[in-house]
Order: sequence, then C-alpha cells, then structure tokens
Amino acid sequence: MIEFIFKANKSITNGEINLKDLPGSSGRMDLVCRCVSSAFFLSHDLRRDTIFYSVHYGAPNPPVAIKFVGSELKRVSPDERSIALFIKKALDKSPMQLWKESTSGIYIAKKEFKDIILEKKNEGKEIYYLHKDGEDIENIFNKENNAENKNIVFILGDHIGIGEEDEKFLEDIGALKVSLSPLELHANHCITIVHNALDKAKLK
Amino acid sequence: MIEFIFKANKSITNGEINLKDLPGSSGRMDLVCRCVSSAFFLSHDLRRDTIFYSVHYGAPNPPVAIKFVGSELKRVSPDERSIALFIKKALDKSPMQLWKESTSGIYIAKKEFKDIILEKKNEGKEIYYLHKDGEDIENIFNKENNAENKNIVFILGDHIGIGEEDEKFLEDIGALKVSLSPLELHANHCITIVHNALDKAKLK
Ligand SMILES: C[S@@+](CC[C@H](N)C(=O)[O-])C[C@H]1O[C@@H](n2cnc3c(N)ncnc32)[C@H](O)[C@@H]1O
Ligand SMILES: C[S@@+](CC[C@H](N)C(=O)[O-])C[C@H]1O[C@@H](n2cnc3c(N)ncnc32)[C@H](O)[C@@H]1O
Repeated sequence: MIEFIFKANKSITNGEINLKDLPGSSGRMDLVCRCVSSAFFLSHDLRRDTIFYSVHYGAPNPPVAIKFVGSELKRVSPDERSIALFIKKALDKSPMQLWKESTSGIYIAKKEFKDIILEKKNEGKEIYYLHKDGEDIENIFNKENNAENKNIVFILGDHIGIGEEDEKFLEDIGALKVSLSPLELHANHCITIVHNALDKAKLK
Repeated sequence: MIEFIFKANKSITNGEINLKDLPGSSGRMDLVCRCVSSAFFLSHDLRRDTIFYSVHYGAPNPPVAIKFVGSELKRVSPDERSIALFIKKALDKSPMQLWKESTSGIYIAKKEFKDIILEKKNEGKEIYYLHKDGEDIENIFNKENNAENKNIVFILGDHIGIGEEDEKFLEDIGALKVSLSPLELHANHCITIVHNALDKAKLK
C-alpha cells in the first residue's frame, strides 16, 4: 500500500466550493484536485493500491481531512472539475471523529494532519517526508529494496509547505526526508514522480 | 530547449469550449490543459526553456496547432480552467499557415502534427517518441549524456495514441522510442517524468 498525506493549508473546510475559482476563493482546491488525479489515474486504469489524504486548514472549520481509497473509487474522472465536485459532496457532510463515507471510496473526518501521520506510524508503516533537500528516492527504492508488499507513507505540503512545527514533528518520529529533484516542484508533480520511482523499482 | 509535440485526436478546433465540460464536448481539453500545466509549472517559477505544441484533430476545422512558449508566457496559472480560457482565446482566432500570436507566448496556426515534427527534424533537433516499449529514458539522458545545451523534441499522444500512420512516419525519420515506465501513463504525467529525468541528469 502506498499512502500520501497532503497538507492543504488554505483549502476550505465546507462545501462552498466555487467551481469557477478553485485556486482563489476555495484556497488552492485546484492543487488538491490535481494531487488526487496524480495519485490514482493510469491510462484506462486506477491505482488500486493507493490511498490519498488531503487535510484542509482553510476557513471556516479547520481541520477537515478527506480520504480517497483507490480500491473503492467509482465514477471519478481525472479532470479537476469532476474531482472538485466529489470533494464538494464530501465537505457538505459534517465531519466527525470517525471517518464517514461520502461517495464510493471518499471519506471525511475531523482529524489533524499530525494525528493521521501518527496513526500510520503506530501501525508500523514507514513514514517519508518529501523534501527537496532529502535523500534521492532512487537510493531508497530500487531493484534491491523495492516497495513491493511494503506499507509506505509519503508526507507532502502545498505551495506553502507543511510548516516548521510539523517538520519538527516528522523529525521527532524519525521520518526520512526523500528528495525527487534538484528543483522545487508542485505537489501533484511530486506524486507522479514518487509513483514512477516505485513502479520502476518494482518491475524493472 | 526542450519541446513537446502532443497529438490531441479529439480536441476541438474552434473556441466553443464548454468550461463545465472540458473532457466531453471539448474532446479531452482537460488533458491538453494538464499537459500545459506539467510542461511549464514549477513551484513559484516557469520552465522558460520549454515549448509545448498541442495539435488538435477534433471538429470542426482540423488540424489546428497551438504553440506555448515558456519564455514568453504571462499571467497563466496551473489550473485547468484558466489554461482552457487561454486556449479558448487562441482557438477564437482563424488559424493561418504562419503562427499568429493570441496572448503572450501562445500562438495558433493551421499545421499538421507531422509537419511540425518535420520542421524540427530539418532544424537538426533530436526527435524522441515517448512509448511504453522504448529504451529507458535513464539510459539516454544521464550524467554522461545530459540534455544541457541540446535541442530535444518529445512526441506524445493522448488517450488514443498517435496512430499507426504517424508511428510509421516517426520510424521513417529515425525517431528513437523512449520509455518512462513499465506502465501505460497519462500524457501529462509523461511530461512531468521527462522533465524530472532531464533535471536529474543535468544537475546531479
Ligand atoms: C510547492 S512545494 C512547497 C514550497 C514551499 N514554499 C516550501 O518551501 O516548503 C510543495 C511540496 O512538494 C514537495 N516537494 C517539492 N519539491 C520537492 C523535491 N524536489 N523533492 C521532494 N519533495 C518536493 C514538498 O513536500 C513540498 O512541501
Ligand atoms: C494514455 S497513453 C496512450 C494510450 C493509447 N491507448 C495507446 O496505446 O497508444 C498517452 C501517451 O503517453 C505516452 N506514454 C504513455 N505511457 C508511456 C510510457 N510508459 N513511456 C513512455 N511514454 C508513454 C505515449 O506517447 C502515449 O501516446
């Protein structure tokens, strides 16, 4: 299983998404949608072994976490607008402590970014923090040490990053910093590159 | 310079783009927009060394080619809807034999997919065809043979591919097949992965 946990610092926390302005009034909801698209879509197929979390810290009701489960997703298309419509449906529900299903494979809950990460850590999963100044991903996943049958969790931030406090937290729990590129990339491109590195390590 | 030439078999060839339905009635215009986003956008920066061509073969007036020049682009954002608005403006113009500028860095012309490729070939550029069953990109671009100061052109298709005739044409002009992954990927993800491979080869 490959999981991504994405911190969306400004993305709104209710269903008042303006589909004509995903970047602005919805707080970079366009980026959340592109991350979902990168996490799951293959040519004529879905990545069923992937789970993607987006944790929103925008107004009016932060935090709200949305979980997308690849093996359960139905009728989702890779374009931003259609993904935004599914997110809107999820955010229209009141988030509780426990995950509540909105549409097939899409869940919502009132959970902190940190707490979701801690849950994974306590389940014994390997936690990696995606950061430009980390260890090259190809040194971590390759033919000798590939991702098959492993439970791996990647943490990443939006245009603002995850912030110092959460960086410190990741350091404290022993998350390894992993780099994908010498350049600073958009989060959705990072997800595409992580998948590619794991695909190549696994099947080469 | 890195150039991408994308064949959009179904994308429409006039400005009647329905922004509420980029995938359907506009003929996978969502995919064209995501390709533009992947071709140019870095975190807080644009890839100025990149040119992206989208050649549309949908109704009512095929072919129409749109050219995006990284070093000249202005006011473009990475979300699909805002890119679609720029494409709409370009497609509202009547395409002629020669490139005509629509907005800053975005041009339109009545040109065939093949003819654009042939122009590049005649200018002495290296032509690569992105295909699952090609040679691994890491064997072609790496520390010893990186892309710096080279003029490289990558050809890729949409959900349908580029078709047998154009594949034959690429073979005839000696284009090398390059593979990015053991899996069949979406075109926009291919662009992200090509950039990453070149970035790593160049700066490592
Ligand atoms: C647009 S970047 C964040 C930029 C923000 N200004 C910062 O300094 O953190 C979005 C996220 O993508 C990931 N990222 C970006 N470039 C990366 C790279 N080269 N390697 C690994 N992760 C990267 C990081 O997790 C980052 O938080
Ligand atoms: C969705 S795929 C095309 C699928 C189409 N059914 C076909 O068989 O050609 C879109 C384009 O991305 C490129 N592509 C997809 N997977 C690739 C891979 N693993 N390596 C290199 N290029 C790839 C190819 O240029 C392809 O035309």
